[in-house]
Amino acid sequence: MNILLIYAHPEPTSLNAALRDFTVGRLQAAGHTVVVSDLYAMEWKARLDAADTLAHEPGQPFKPTTASKHAFENGLQSADIAAEQAKLLAADVVLFQFPLWWFSMPAIMKGWFERVYAYGLAYGVGEHSDRHWGDRYGEGSFAGKRAMLIVTTGGWESHYGPRGINGPIEDILFPIHHGMLHYPGFDVLPPFVQYRVERMGEERFAAICEQLGQRLDTLADTPPIPFRKQNFGDYLIPSLELHPDLAPGAAGFAVHVA
Amino acid sequence: MNILLIYAHPEPTSLNAALRDFTVGRLQAAGHTVVVSDLYAMEWKARLDAADTLAHEPGQPFKPTTASKHAFENGLQSADIAAEQAKLLAADVVLFQFPLWWFSMPAIMKGWFERVYAYGLAYGVGEHSDRHWGDRYGEGSFAGKRAMLIVTTGGWESHYGPRGINGPIEDILFPIHHGMLHYPGFDVLPPFVQYRVERMGEERFAAICEQLGQRLDTLADTPPIPFRKQNFGDYLIPSLELHPDLAPGAAGFAVHVA
Repeated sequence: MNILLIYAHPEPTSLNAALRDFTVGRLQAAGHTVVVSDLYAMEWKARLDAADTLAHEPGQPFKPTTASKHAFENGLQSADIAAEQAKLLAADVVLFQFPLWWFSMPAIMKGWFERVYAYGLAYGVGEHSDRHWGDRYGEGSFAGKRAMLIVTTGGWESHYGPRGINGPIEDILFPIHHGMLHYPGFDVLPPFVQYRVERMGEERFAAICEQLGQRLDTLADTPPIPFRKQNFGDYLIPSLELHPDLAPGAAGFAVHVA
Repeated sequence: MNILLIYAHPEPTSLNAALRDFTVGRLQAAGHTVVVSDLYAMEWKARLDAADTLAHEPGQPFKPTTASKHAFENGLQSADIAAEQAKLLAADVVLFQFPLWWFSMPAIMKGWFERVYAYGLAYGVGEHSDRHWGDRYGEGSFAGKRAMLIVTTGGWESHYGPRGINGPIEDILFPIHHGMLHYPGFDVLPPFVQYRVERMGEERFAAICEQLGQRLDTLADTPPIPFRKQNFGDYLIPSLELHPDLAPGAAGFAVHVA
């Protein structure tokens, strides 16, 4: 398979860098083609702004959505954006690896999504009607591709448990899994999360690589998180509320998993 | 009061810019002192990296937490970080205004938190013992200050409702409210959220200003979201799971609101 790794950590001697190198090696040894976008090494521009479109005329208002649509449709995106989109479109599987900073991905990776996820590619795709609210949440440009997060935290696993003070890790990651990956059509695999990584001996590192290796060996057939699809009857259109017959009386992120 | 507005939108003629100007005017007319950090206008550096500490020696490993601690304690932070910290410490109320992009704040604002929230200021504060797990989640450097989000979305309100496909807005914002604001001690006010802002006539703009104005007029006495405090018996230490006697059998973000 073609596998793309979007990677964000500033330090080449970090645990994350070691896990990245392990990941690349494991996947290549299995015969896969691996492309890495090392966002810090690339000095990826995090800020979405008017410079993202070559068509922007100084002094004219910059409307992010309109500008993205026009630039994407007319080949007028900045070169760094177009290059990442080409990598995405060529990939069968996309891995996103990052340390959890303030309960989300690092800013540099958030800016990757904001800039690479163009209107017409990741949103604003497909027909809008009273039966179909755009190709999203289970349909879209990345349908048929798989995605998985590889995440490290300083905090303890129990702090991210069902009643842990930080909130459950699956809820913390829901805006990414559901809102950024399921939205444009990815099949989203359960994340690989390692907690309390500040102190790390050789033995634990070897154990982590063993677990991560098993996840990497099974990327093609691990069942994805069964997020509901938008346009096949589970949701009312246009309110996009879950149909009253499904999970009756329940609310929150969990109702969107079938 | 001293009010700090952290603002992130790239376009000076946008709805967000108009709401920012309204906010500043309303607060000043009420006698408050207002400071605005317009992150795009400042060309705020979003990326956390070794350049954030003046003490970093090229060729040496950059460890974000250790470097932040050392730089903060020794006055060796980059000038842009120190300036924002001074504004924060002088503020009684901090407002964060942004468009919701991919279910979170823009990257440029995420980078503000990552860089300004130094070790020793926003985390790594206070004693760690079997009764007290650091001054956080209700204690910390910003205790006594209030914070509120001002957020715009393109999507409809029902899409962000209890059973809406995007997930409930209060859960989408929980990692910010609880993890980034309650964590270092802020009292967090309910957010001001406006949906479906792509098309906006004068009448609706006036109505929004009316609603926002009421929120701004009552910043000092609006009851904050009653997030539980960490170190006063609600949580087991060190697992930091909610005490079994509280919300028995329940789980998820909601159990952290008393």
